[in-house]
Amino acid sequence: MVPRYARPEMTAIWSPETRYRIWFEIEALAAEAMGDLGTIPAEDARLIREKGQPRADAISAADIARIDEIERETRHDVIAFLTWMAEGIGESARFMHQGMTSSDVLDTCLSVQLTRAADLLLMDLDQLLAALKRRAEEHKFTPTVGRSHGIHAEPTTFGLKLAGHYAEFARCRARIAAARAEVATCAISGPVGTFASVDPRVEEFVAAKLGLAVEPVSTQVIPRDRHAAFFCALAVTASAIERLATEVRHLQRSEVREAEEFFHPGQKGSSAMPHKRNPVLSENLTGLARVVRGYATPALENVALWHERDISHSSVERFIGPDATITLDFALARLTGMMDKLTIYPDRMVANLESLGGVVHSQKVLLALTQAGLSREGAYKAVQRAAMATWTRLAEPDGRSFRDNLLADEEVAGKLGAEALDGAIDPQRDFRHVDTIFARVFGA
Amino acid sequence: MVPRYARPEMTAIWSPETRYRIWFEIEALAAEAMGDLGTIPAEDARLIREKGQPRADAISAADIARIDEIERETRHDVIAFLTWMAEGIGESARFMHQGMTSSDVLDTCLSVQLTRAADLLLMDLDQLLAALKRRAEEHKFTPTVGRSHGIHAEPTTFGLKLAGHYAEFARCRARIAAARAEVATCAISGPVGTFASVDPRVEEFVAAKLGLAVEPVSTQVIPRDRHAAFFCALAVTASAIERLATEVRHLQRSEVREAEEFFHPGQKGSSAMPHKRNPVLSENLTGLARVVRGYATPALENVALWHERDISHSSVERFIGPDATITLDFALARLTGMMDKLTIYPDRMVANLESLGGVVHSQKVLLALTQAGLSREGAYKAVQRAAMATWTRLAEPDGRSFRDNLLADEEVAGKLGAEALDGAIDPQRDFRHVDTIFARVFGA
Amino acid sequence: MVPRYARPEMTAIWSPETRYRIWFEIEALAAEAMGDLGTIPAEDARLIREKGQPRADAISAADIARIDEIERETRHDVIAFLTWMAEGIGESARFMHQGMTSSDVLDTCLSVQLTRAADLLLMDLDQLLAALKRRAEEHKFTPTVGRSHGIHAEPTTFGLKLAGHYAEFARCRARIAAARAEVATCAISGPVGTFASVDPRVEEFVAAKLGLAVEPVSTQVIPRDRHAAFFCALAVTASAIERLATEVRHLQRSEVREAEEFFHPGQKGSSAMPHKRNPVLSENLTGLARVVRGYATPALENVALWHERDISHSSVERFIGPDATITLDFALARLTGMMDKLTIYPDRMVANLESLGGVVHSQKVLLALTQAGLSREGAYKAVQRAAMATWTRLAEPDGRSFRDNLLADEEVAGKLGAEALDGAIDPQRDFRHVDTIFARVFGA
Amino acid sequence: MVPRYARPEMTAIWSPETRYRIWFEIEALAAEAMGDLGTIPAEDARLIREKGQPRADAISAADIARIDEIERETRHDVIAFLTWMAEGIGESARFMHQGMTSSDVLDTCLSVQLTRAADLLLMDLDQLLAALKRRAEEHKFTPTVGRSHGIHAEPTTFGLKLAGHYAEFARCRARIAAARAEVATCAISGPVGTFASVDPRVEEFVAAKLGLAVEPVSTQVIPRDRHAAFFCALAVTASAIERLATEVRHLQRSEVREAEEFFHPGQKGSSAMPHKRNPVLSENLTGLARVVRGYATPALENVALWHERDISHSSVERFIGPDATITLDFALARLTGMMDKLTIYPDRMVANLESLGGVVHSQKVLLALTQAGLSREGAYKAVQRAAMATWTRLAEPDGRSFRDNLLADEEVAGKLGAEALDGAIDPQRDFRHVDTIFARVFGA
Repeated sequence: MVPRYARPEMTAIWSPETRYRIWFEIEALAAEAMGDLGTIPAEDARLIREKGQPRADAISAADIARIDEIERETRHDVIAFLTWMAEGIGESARFMHQGMTSSDVLDTCLSVQLTRAADLLLMDLDQLLAALKRRAEEHKFTPTVGRSHGIHAEPTTFGLKLAGHYAEFARCRARIAAARAEVATCAISGPVGTFASVDPRVEEFVAAKLGLAVEPVSTQVIPRDRHAAFFCALAVTASAIERLATEVRHLQRSEVREAEEFFHPGQKGSSAMPHKRNPVLSENLTGLARVVRGYATPALENVALWHERDISHSSVERFIGPDATITLDFALARLTGMMDKLTIYPDRMVANLESLGGVVHSQKVLLALTQAGLSREGAYKAVQRAAMATWTRLAEPDGRSFRDNLLADEEVAGKLGAEALDGAIDPQRDFRHVDTIFARVFGA
Repeated sequence: MVPRYARPEMTAIWSPETRYRIWFEIEALAAEAMGDLGTIPAEDARLIREKGQPRADAISAADIARIDEIERETRHDVIAFLTWMAEGIGESARFMHQGMTSSDVLDTCLSVQLTRAADLLLMDLDQLLAALKRRAEEHKFTPTVGRSHGIHAEPTTFGLKLAGHYAEFARCRARIAAARAEVATCAISGPVGTFASVDPRVEEFVAAKLGLAVEPVSTQVIPRDRHAAFFCALAVTASAIERLATEVRHLQRSEVREAEEFFHPGQKGSSAMPHKRNPVLSENLTGLARVVRGYATPALENVALWHERDISHSSVERFIGPDATITLDFALARLTGMMDKLTIYPDRMVANLESLGGVVHSQKVLLALTQAGLSREGAYKAVQRAAMATWTRLAEPDGRSFRDNLLADEEVAGKLGAEALDGAIDPQRDFRHVDTIFARVFGA
Repeated sequence: MVPRYARPEMTAIWSPETRYRIWFEIEALAAEAMGDLGTIPAEDARLIREKGQPRADAISAADIARIDEIERETRHDVIAFLTWMAEGIGESARFMHQGMTSSDVLDTCLSVQLTRAADLLLMDLDQLLAALKRRAEEHKFTPTVGRSHGIHAEPTTFGLKLAGHYAEFARCRARIAAARAEVATCAISGPVGTFASVDPRVEEFVAAKLGLAVEPVSTQVIPRDRHAAFFCALAVTASAIERLATEVRHLQRSEVREAEEFFHPGQKGSSAMPHKRNPVLSENLTGLARVVRGYATPALENVALWHERDISHSSVERFIGPDATITLDFALARLTGMMDKLTIYPDRMVANLESLGGVVHSQKVLLALTQAGLSREGAYKAVQRAAMATWTRLAEPDGRSFRDNLLADEEVAGKLGAEALDGAIDPQRDFRHVDTIFARVFGA
Repeated sequence: MVPRYARPEMTAIWSPETRYRIWFEIEALAAEAMGDLGTIPAEDARLIREKGQPRADAISAADIARIDEIERETRHDVIAFLTWMAEGIGESARFMHQGMTSSDVLDTCLSVQLTRAADLLLMDLDQLLAALKRRAEEHKFTPTVGRSHGIHAEPTTFGLKLAGHYAEFARCRARIAAARAEVATCAISGPVGTFASVDPRVEEFVAAKLGLAVEPVSTQVIPRDRHAAFFCALAVTASAIERLATEVRHLQRSEVREAEEFFHPGQKGSSAMPHKRNPVLSENLTGLARVVRGYATPALENVALWHERDISHSSVERFIGPDATITLDFALARLTGMMDKLTIYPDRMVANLESLGGVVHSQKVLLALTQAGLSREGAYKAVQRAAMATWTRLAEPDGRSFRDNLLADEEVAGKLGAEALDGAIDPQRDFRHVDTIFARVFGA
């Protein structure tokens, strides 16, 4: 976790305090279920909750240091926590954790943390989607050039660009919701997951109270394919962030300048060059996307634990659990803010669109020529000829527009007069179906 | 693609013949839709189908060489194909591909290929699931030691082990079904995806005929987050394969020998050591899992294309499209065969289970002592004492069993007599809930 | 391996014919060494070479099919090969492979293949370096704008850009040379690498003949950290390719057009838009870089084999051995051709450099003001003020150049007159040290 | 960074205090060089050092908070630092950073940090190598079974196993030394790296003082292929750690128990099962290896920055710079301690070696039979026959040893009497060349 790329709410999910509170909640719920089932005395279950709850609620840095100290002796984190809890609960504490194993606590806690993290990410995505929708509608018909291969292709609108990103993030939202369901399971099944010493009804009770599903078959641990799928969903979302960030970086290039990240008063773009206004947010997001994506590989390597479980996944998750969720939360929020305040320059968009003498209309001319009877091959060559003539001589004094070059071409002129040509390249044709696409993406 | 790790049905999906047939189908369907809409003459649409279909059906290696030759001149694969098609269709061919762009054909074709590949993978998984279920039921109550950290933990059954893998592959099946839906979209939206020159109804028609959904908003290309999610789903499945393969490799170790891959008559385990019977299939699967998993990273890097699209994803997909699906198909089939014929040695399982003098029952004694009034801490120390005495001196002539060491321990004996102890460690307790777990996994 | 991204010379290294020839060479050399040592009869060693060499030299597709057939029965590739060889060599064949294990042949063969592949890659890099050097010298003083964050920063030269890439590829060359040395070892050490049944002098002899070093301690296999390091070196080189490809893609953007990939007569940029000239080679290289980079992860996962060895690495290497080297060879050659023929537009470079009204000189003004007595902070603000005024109003009718805005600024004008200002921003200052840098990179 | 996997010395390299001290050192050295060259007044250079040094030396948490505060306004870290420095240095501060750009400071600082980190890693490796050498010599002739595919193969010694790991880590040491040299460069070249406003002699001076080489051609930033190679070297080392950790995990398995991690008094292996002694250190190292390896991918993605530079690499490096080096340092130290104190059970090694009835000697019998005149094929079948008979019936009451089964085989007995057989399988033969291998690895 890098503090400058972390927000407090997500960070709090991964604090020791939160972790120990969830551990207590799992142990207390399990004790209550066992009390109800008569596995342990109901009175002790009650006392575990009664005396343990305030201890958990008020857990302090000093308490955490004390638990760490016990862990240094026992070399076992859950035993250290239970020992510390027992110091406050007293006699009844010996009924805690009955028939359970550490993984029951650790893995169910991780499920709680990951689902909470997923909930924050879903809220982040909702805010991002709202911002994208607002800006998409604002620029629904703002003309801009569509570019394939970085080369001017045909007109599109800035709203359509954003609609594409909106749809992509809507898919990411669905994926994270699905990934949340993947990791939202509870296991209280004891050593090697056989329930030999703990009743399956305890698991059912704890799961229900925590809003989790029961893990159908655990092998002491919750199987790690679930977590791998979770981190993959984050990785795909990170890549979607990179795609939008890359778009903004391109639009802000000096030669393009169609959009610009908001530049704060007082901000300095460069220590050396006072004239700079750099797309630093979107570049930063590009880097953060690499970071989050990088966590998918160790998550995938975590799946093949040995036999019923080993502990190799644990150290990996101490890194990637917090780092992937905290970083993605930060990145989504940063992206939302950036898109919300992005300065758009419609004039520059039009200027760029027209800058190549009209060759962006080549396909429409190609179609018109084909329909006027030219072979596809012949039409292609004629249009390519005119386009290249336009493009390569654009800066020269006698450079002509694409339209003029076409009209000067005998083969074209033989099929298409000036009026027909102007009809073919009418820019209104380009945006006829924007409404259709918007309806598909945003609903009617 | 490595021929020895490829099966014909999946490989065929990625052949040039298949690709060109799908391309033709897309072009022919689009022409039919345009014919219906009056964008092109209906008669020409009919002729495209009539004359083109046999050409597509009978496409030969010589045809493919001819298309390649045209591509070497035009440096454009779709134009090369259209040119070759036109050679057979004649005049009407100029109405093919009207208002469309190459990506309409390429991306929709990839969708068809990936969904077909997914269908094969789903069938593979069905067969694997059937094999796992059969073996799980066969060994539902075959006792074996559960191992955490590679260390004997508590008894479980071999059927439970397999039930866990069954559940994991059932999740993989659901993920691949979801991933299939992700990539099952059709885009016929023309340059930069605006439908400027092609009616959205063409896309709807082609999509419906091909069993695909309409891509709500394409930017000339189908967005690559879909494909990234697809390859991530394959990667998670590969990791699940690795987990089961690793289990078998462990079980076949010389010291464990609880299971063994079927050894073919005539098979040679080693060129040097005639005594060897090696788990070569599961080791091979471990390697194939690494290969398939490795394709997730370039798939994720493919998402952030520039502006409306660039072509950098294309070369990546020429590798990972075939390689990931063909390899995973092969691996799943190999795994199914391996599990189907896996030789199980229940006697060895029992022998290993008993090999540590009974310490695998330590938790049950711990619980019995706690319930008999010892503090959790005190009980833990007493049981650990007896277990370590058992374990470390097991091979010595006067080494005693865990039970005997417990009864010789004053603190234990003061709380638990021989009868109570035997009741606590009764192996029948261990398997009480196997039915419950099986019902969760396989249904009632 | 994707045929369209493969060149024959590298592909041949990975053919079955080549592999079997190398296997024979290893076996024949080992037999010769054993013959000299008296481990096997010298006459049989002679006959193995005499009868085996023509068989290996003339190996045909039919032979390979025959070996495959034997492998289907024995399920062991090296035994299949030895059996086929014995069919031709006769009686003496039983002295082949004495005391050796398959890995001795397989791993030493892989070393030969990887070193041959590395030699081709080093030649590729030499050609790339030559092309880059030629173009760098050609454009040593061609002014162009340097861009940080995609934003105009300060003037540089196109030659300097290329010098940077030259230096990077020179480092890649050194890394691949080092990686070649990593994998250039020979192991003929028998089962688990103890030389129990084969004399270490056999290994020394074979190694020397093959131009390899002796593997100091093999565990039946050559340790896979060597191969991991090898594939990492390829991955870094792939990333260097991506950096230069990305530069070209940027330079060819419609708004930039400072350079352009050579456009073949007859080439079609787009099936729909005849005006397109797309940077398809550099985009393709970007994708190929992702592919090659992706192989580093499975190579790293191959290192931790179990005990003295398992066979999980083998299937991985059947993919990545050929795929990584063939693809990188192709990519380097494509990049060399692309850079060799890259069309450069110096006029566009100058036009872009001047397009922001001169703000690219802001640092030099900042320095001049600081030296004229303004505080760093004050100078920064003044220059930023003038630059922003220039930039944001550039397109407006009364937009002024950076120079004019500076002279109109009281604080600036109080410190720096027109003459001093012009001296400060003299473009000759920018290129004073180009010679120094070139000397560092290319030598004096 | 996860505190439990971090050691103070490596962590300190990445603290804000260290970073700001290195920044100051770079600025002060650059000022001194400029003072000598007369670019700035020598007296001001002297004052920068005189007043700045104590400020840098005594930098406190409060100072860092103050710098952070300035950064929140300027949104630029280096400017914030310079502003804070100027608050202490006064008037002369305006001569700091003359003609330089932030990257000069940031990248050179990163070089200093990475080389310091590499120095610690090299020391870690020296300690690991010393521990491995000591244990290898201790067990140079401790017999143990060598295993391929997890299956008993032939005898080896525990010392040979360790010698193999020693050699691997010695290679890792060489790789990290090479990686250190890769990143040990200094760039003080100003915007876009042209030295337009800073004399190359400043760079030479600073580099020499910091023990770095001059970056031959920087593009404002030090090229990131250097850093990618660095992180790849760490990744390969992580994989080597995983290989040794995997070996220990295997040896500690309940069925194998040939070695065991030191078990601390007071340690608890499991919260549920008091009998457990788990290989938690080596499992933890396996996980940490995944983490460190995972950082190679974003490092490789960092190479292709746009044009002369963008800032996307920066956020990645804020994660992986500290995380990769701190985690690898911790892992190497943990591995050293683990290997140093590893409990070895030679008796168990012998027991396992003999546990399969002697089939581990099969190759030697194969060779003896071949040399006694049997064809290789015939000998293989005879030995395989006897080995399988031994292996599969080993546990049965009338199970015979491999030797007895061989002597009972007519084909074998016809070629080899009891005496000849015993000579062939004499275990002393197995270890004849251990000295040779040790001499290769550890020197004569």
